[in-house]
Amino acid sequence: MRIGVEDAVDFARGAAFLGTGGGGDPYIGRLLLQEALNKNGPANVVSVTELDDDALVVPIAGMGAPTVIIEKIIGFAEGERVLRAIEARMGRKATAIISAEIGGLNALYPTAMAANLGLPVVDGDGMGRAFPELQMVSFNIVGQRASPVAMCNEYGDIVMIDSEDNHRVETLARPVVVPMGGLCMMSLYAMTGAAAKTCVIRDTLSLALGIGRALGGARRAQQDPFEALFAYLRSTEYYRHCRLLFDGKIVDLRRETQRGWAIGHVVLEDIAGSGKRMEVTFRNEFLRARRGGRTVAIVPDLISILDRETAEPITTENLKYGQRVKVVGSSVPPIMRSERALEVWGPRPFGFDEPFIPIEAAGG
Amino acid sequence: MRIGVEDAVDFARGAAFLGTGGGGDPYIGRLLLQEALNKNGPANVVSVTELDDDALVVPIAGMGAPTVIIEKIIGFAEGERVLRAIEARMGRKATAIISAEIGGLNALYPTAMAANLGLPVVDGDGMGRAFPELQMVSFNIVGQRASPVAMCNEYGDIVMIDSEDNHRVETLARPVVVPMGGLCMMSLYAMTGAAAKTCVIRDTLSLALGIGRALGGARRAQQDPFEALFAYLRSTEYYRHCRLLFDGKIVDLRRETQRGWAIGHVVLEDIAGSGKRMEVTFRNEFLRARRGGRTVAIVPDLISILDRETAEPITTENLKYGQRVKVVGSSVPPIMRSERALEVWGPRPFGFDEPFIPIEAAGG
Repeated sequence: MRIGVEDAVDFARGAAFLGTGGGGDPYIGRLLLQEALNKNGPANVVSVTELDDDALVVPIAGMGAPTVIIEKIIGFAEGERVLRAIEARMGRKATAIISAEIGGLNALYPTAMAANLGLPVVDGDGMGRAFPELQMVSFNIVGQRASPVAMCNEYGDIVMIDSEDNHRVETLARPVVVPMGGLCMMSLYAMTGAAAKTCVIRDTLSLALGIGRALGGARRAQQDPFEALFAYLRSTEYYRHCRLLFDGKIVDLRRETQRGWAIGHVVLEDIAGSGKRMEVTFRNEFLRARRGGRTVAIVPDLISILDRETAEPITTENLKYGQRVKVVGSSVPPIMRSERALEVWGPRPFGFDEPFIPIEAAGG
Repeated sequence: MRIGVEDAVDFARGAAFLGTGGGGDPYIGRLLLQEALNKNGPANVVSVTELDDDALVVPIAGMGAPTVIIEKIIGFAEGERVLRAIEARMGRKATAIISAEIGGLNALYPTAMAANLGLPVVDGDGMGRAFPELQMVSFNIVGQRASPVAMCNEYGDIVMIDSEDNHRVETLARPVVVPMGGLCMMSLYAMTGAAAKTCVIRDTLSLALGIGRALGGARRAQQDPFEALFAYLRSTEYYRHCRLLFDGKIVDLRRETQRGWAIGHVVLEDIAGSGKRMEVTFRNEFLRARRGGRTVAIVPDLISILDRETAEPITTENLKYGQRVKVVGSSVPPIMRSERALEVWGPRPFGFDEPFIPIEAAGG
């Protein structure tokens, strides 16, 4: 598959949906992607099944608070430097790059980088969505090692981390993000093609493009974009249990940047005036949606907040008091709901004292 | 020169004096040193003038809050790992190791390591005392590059930093210390023998040993240790303008661990009951002593607080309410008071809005 400049808007919109509020600002990501695709032609997107077993697959991601990402523009040099640092450590060249998460900037930047460097980008990622911590990735769930980790900022500062423990990698890397300038590019979980086949959440670049096309197509045809979105999601193996969770306006918003994350919650009131409310808790990404004190969607299932007219996905940092929005919930594929997966990115790792309830069973 | 196990107690006591409250707990450092010297025989201490110009001199230091260092014992594996990490990056073996600062643990650990590894340790250091920040080192003052920087903790986690800017190295490394466990070993400013000859503060291991011997000798001979200390200091080129700044007891103490430093101040009241007070401000090290609101000693000159009977140097984290102490001030050599040096470790870099006043000119 190829992603060309004509796909950039749809791809960015789909990536914003999968970002569930996080993953980094898709607008900046789209500009970077358009620049790269204009200059170099389409990016070469390959299936994980096409990789040689001894290929070197290098994940690329930005790390930082979404509140910083909308103000600070990251360039291509940072991503290329982390790639080169990993190559130097592995003693070989990268065969392909891959998104660590298929959300926002982090879905788009690796594709832009792939076009720039003439490398293929894998159709897949490590989260099937976006998550706020480095160990919350399918590569970790199957036991891949996060180290060596490379981080780079716009000054060319490089920080490399080696640890046996993927959780400590998160603990060591997170405080570096602030002196790095609030946002940096990084690479971690470099792996062989054989390993990638065991843990990549597959075909999520195609999925992002499909979601974006459904939304964009409906808008262009002046059809209901939500209907088009649901119809498309139901046609995928991924997010087929999807539905409208709430239709309302934002009446309360608490958002703080803490230790490099955007942490808070947003409260919505029913647009129809029934007085019913929904509270959505977030840490970079939307994590839990409750209605009348009852959980109706929770991680790892997807909670997306979209403009109620245009179905444009809204990121955490772009939430505003008074906005009219619809909240959409979608199931995630079984690989993301396994017992081992829930230990890494289920409700409890996020500090919620409640079990995972699949969105299709949550009722409401 | 050789430092043998019979020198360990004196050497540690002298290093504690030069640590001016910081440099890491000398007790733990002394235990490590005794273990190493017992096992391997004396450490080989070489003058910087004996180094080949193309030698690779690797500084070693612990980084952390003194309040943590007294509770957490650091081992030899951490120091050896940072040395090996630097060697791997430089593509060659270290010729000699050197203390980054001649204070407390940081004076003793490299000597212990040298004995363990059969490497020489340079008679000198990068501070001529102890300072709380990584760029406050003579290596930086003459323009040596801090990077590559290696940091290692007891879990074997390694963090490496590369930056063009020595000040950013401090900013990037400092927040890593807390997730590293509050204390880690590190190496930075690896340099050639030729470079070392331009910037090492020379003969400070000998100096620490001389100070320790003066104090220990007087105690053993039941003479006044302060007189012996002053007599010895006056015989050196280094700290010859030395004098008693205050004789009192601790009546107030404020000490907080902030961002990996022990920050605060201690207030002393005249032991003779005149009601006169001295306030000593510290960040790991004692930075400024004021009497009656007037500065009588300030960085980079040495301010040491010693037990008023035994003249045992007291570190920041061992200050206690009610302690009877003497405050001793000493001048530092001209190389440490140059205009360029004061820009790095004079009053203003520490946030004091006052010029440097040499202790011999400060009066009082």
